[in-house]
Amino acid sequence: MEERTLINQTPQKIGKKVRLCGWVNTRRDHGKMVFIDLRDRSGLVQIVGDEKLGNLRPEDAIEIVGLVKERPGNMVNEKIATGKVEIEAETVKILAKSAELPFDVGNELKVQLPTLLDFRPLTLRHPTQKAVFDVQEKIAQSFRDYLTKDGFKEIFCPTITATATEGGAELFKIGYFDHQAFLAQSPQFYKQIAVGAFERVFTLAHAYRAEPSITTRHLTEYVGLDVEMGFIDSWKEVYRVADNLLKFIFAELKKVKPEVDSLRGEGKGMIIPETVKETPVLKLREAQEIIFKRVGRDNRQEPDLQPADEEEICKWAKEEKKSDLVIITHYPTKKRPMYSFPDPQDPDYTYSFDILGMGVEWVTGGQRINDYQQLYDSIKNRDYNPENFSFYLQAFKYGMPPEGGFCLGLERITQHVLGLENVRQASLFPRDLSRVDVRLTEAKNAPAKKK
Amino acid sequence: MEERTLINQTPQKIGKKVRLCGWVNTRRDHGKMVFIDLRDRSGLVQIVGDEKLGNLRPEDAIEIVGLVKERPGNMVNEKIATGKVEIEAETVKILAKSAELPFDVGNELKVQLPTLLDFRPLTLRHPTQKAVFDVQEKIAQSFRDYLTKDGFKEIFCPTITATATEGGAELFKIGYFDHQAFLAQSPQFYKQIAVGAFERVFTLAHAYRAEPSITTRHLTEYVGLDVEMGFIDSWKEVYRVADNLLKFIFAELKKVKPEVDSLRGEGKGMIIPETVKETPVLKLREAQEIIFKRVGRDNRQEPDLQPADEEEICKWAKEEKKSDLVIITHYPTKKRPMYSFPDPQDPDYTYSFDILGMGVEWVTGGQRINDYQQLYDSIKNRDYNPENFSFYLQAFKYGMPPEGGFCLGLERITQHVLGLENVRQASLFPRDLSRVDVRLTEAKNAPAKKK
Repeated sequence: MEERTLINQTPQKIGKKVRLCGWVNTRRDHGKMVFIDLRDRSGLVQIVGDEKLGNLRPEDAIEIVGLVKERPGNMVNEKIATGKVEIEAETVKILAKSAELPFDVGNELKVQLPTLLDFRPLTLRHPTQKAVFDVQEKIAQSFRDYLTKDGFKEIFCPTITATATEGGAELFKIGYFDHQAFLAQSPQFYKQIAVGAFERVFTLAHAYRAEPSITTRHLTEYVGLDVEMGFIDSWKEVYRVADNLLKFIFAELKKVKPEVDSLRGEGKGMIIPETVKETPVLKLREAQEIIFKRVGRDNRQEPDLQPADEEEICKWAKEEKKSDLVIITHYPTKKRPMYSFPDPQDPDYTYSFDILGMGVEWVTGGQRINDYQQLYDSIKNRDYNPENFSFYLQAFKYGMPPEGGFCLGLERITQHVLGLENVRQASLFPRDLSRVDVRLTEAKNAPAKKK
Repeated sequence: MEERTLINQTPQKIGKKVRLCGWVNTRRDHGKMVFIDLRDRSGLVQIVGDEKLGNLRPEDAIEIVGLVKERPGNMVNEKIATGKVEIEAETVKILAKSAELPFDVGNELKVQLPTLLDFRPLTLRHPTQKAVFDVQEKIAQSFRDYLTKDGFKEIFCPTITATATEGGAELFKIGYFDHQAFLAQSPQFYKQIAVGAFERVFTLAHAYRAEPSITTRHLTEYVGLDVEMGFIDSWKEVYRVADNLLKFIFAELKKVKPEVDSLRGEGKGMIIPETVKETPVLKLREAQEIIFKRVGRDNRQEPDLQPADEEEICKWAKEEKKSDLVIITHYPTKKRPMYSFPDPQDPDYTYSFDILGMGVEWVTGGQRINDYQQLYDSIKNRDYNPENFSFYLQAFKYGMPPEGGFCLGLERITQHVLGLENVRQASLFPRDLSRVDVRLTEAKNAPAKKK
């Protein structure tokens, strides 16, 4: 059997017979002539044939053998990469018939979010949707590439944990044989432990939040891009690595931007933040002071930036520093986790940071407490039981160097660079309060059915 | 401050002053002279100094500034990569003191498995342990590299699932708000759904088995290296990709073998299977026949190979075909999952395969049923309720091409190539019936303690 040709290779095979496999994207009948747009993972191409194409329906999976022909100049389709050729069909084989579609997926995909997700196996086939996950894959790849080159080691952390380590709220409980266990909120403790052995580590880790609210920014299960590094000379190294990593990811995304923009269509292209060599750095209190001066909003005592503050300080960074990114440091000790390193000059604030971009948070991180006794005391001071942290604490008992780290959410970064309204659009199979593939409320209310 | 030098770079810096960071691996006192072996992520080097090194203890995290000097010929240590140099310490700074160690980790690590795991944060620092996770990282990297180059797309699948899809046994239950959910046994359904959009996909997915038994081969949480591919011309393509992928991983592992072997030490080096261009392929029944003829054990009616059979058929492959790998196909339909593709010539057997190597299973896979009605019927015939599979079935309703895939266990491959006795040694933080970092039985039986 002739080897399969991918659709994007057809312009290089004019005058040759090829075997193509793919899905019927659209069909147009012109009397005895039938036109098919065939879709595979590499693109679209026009197939021309007679009535033997007449019984094909959208989303049928087919195999076509035919001749690649140059189109006459006036018939060239500039909109697609294969627009200069068409395939004259000789034989057609149906590999799998499609049922009638609930909505058109061959042209524009006009569905609301619930339908997009109810029909995820189908809607994922649309180029605008596939492009989202091309971007997501690129983010993950460039994250790993940058860190691997910088001496970081990839590790694999478990998601089943024994204790509600960072506090008991928002945790999913698991029945673990005769015990109770929990789904990890993050790989935080494991990546810190790993620093004691490997110095510099990263992990792509599933993380879970049992947040009983529905927002456009939260998933109950997401992928965290987590980094941790030891033997830091200054906590500033941590945000510098994060900042440079982001810039590297942006540079890699720029390479695929033309293709993604073409797949996504008008007004749905990538929005890659503009960066400068020295990303501006502000303490939280400095940022709040700037906001107060700019718009008169007095949040100078607040422990965090409100969404409107995040937007305003990003505006400032863009206007004053020509940067879409801004690094905010020194969040209050009370508001950060117990392992956050207090600034020795001002222990009410921590060596912590967020990187904001275009009005929203992209990265969060900071230096961690590495001294055993200080960490033990911090755990006690938060009213946690140090007994529950014995495994974690062990790493600090035997010489843990100064260290810090940070985390990015894979779906959030995808959402941001594509300007998606809802983070669910940036997850292949999003989980939330009311959906685990299917809508849970329906599943619950549906009458019991016999099979 | 002078930039940090990694220990493995010191032989290139003879005569220069360097700043090193790391852990005290061992200390030896010779009168007023003190010798330290310093360890960082890149290796070990000898530090020489006076009494200012005298208060250092094993596992203290320190920073040393000193002069790199060539050792006299008779003092060269051939056993380590930096054996031709030593560092004359000028200043020493303790970054973090270590508590007294429960056992020696500077030389040979002589602990049994329970202790190895009880003290995981500490034992991970030992070069023999770190090497295990160097190998693991290399397996994951080469898995991704091979598939990315071959047109496969990396996807991220959820681990929270709505229904006990592949049968109810061995599933962990999650309290999911007002509902019950389950931890995924595999990303099987998601990778198949993704084929409908992306054709060829792979994923590194956490998978969970609530198996209430303790063996040397099972973890309750592990990382699956999962692959799925559409538009296959023959189901044999699936095992050919798996076979070539394994061979690529082996070739990549060979590159790090000398370093790993040196870290692991005598008798603990890597065991990379020897392969031949045409890996032998046998139907299960053929393999059983061969075993019967070779050793007289009549398992010719058994639905699977017993461990002794796996060893015997691997012996046959090595002796007769000079291959450490052998592909066994056509497992009985009854014993394979409901999505397995029955051989049209003999529907009691499936287009399924295992790849065995050196007596154990490395890969399992096969072609899947891609026709909607056939899959629906197969689900019903297994006494499952098709209603529970509606999301999965949707992917097949709208034209799913012929497809198949396979899976490797990351920890098992690591275990096999290092000849580890227990798969727990190949997991950073292994979970089993009785352990989630700490021993669960102890946690349960311990008297309630006030903090």
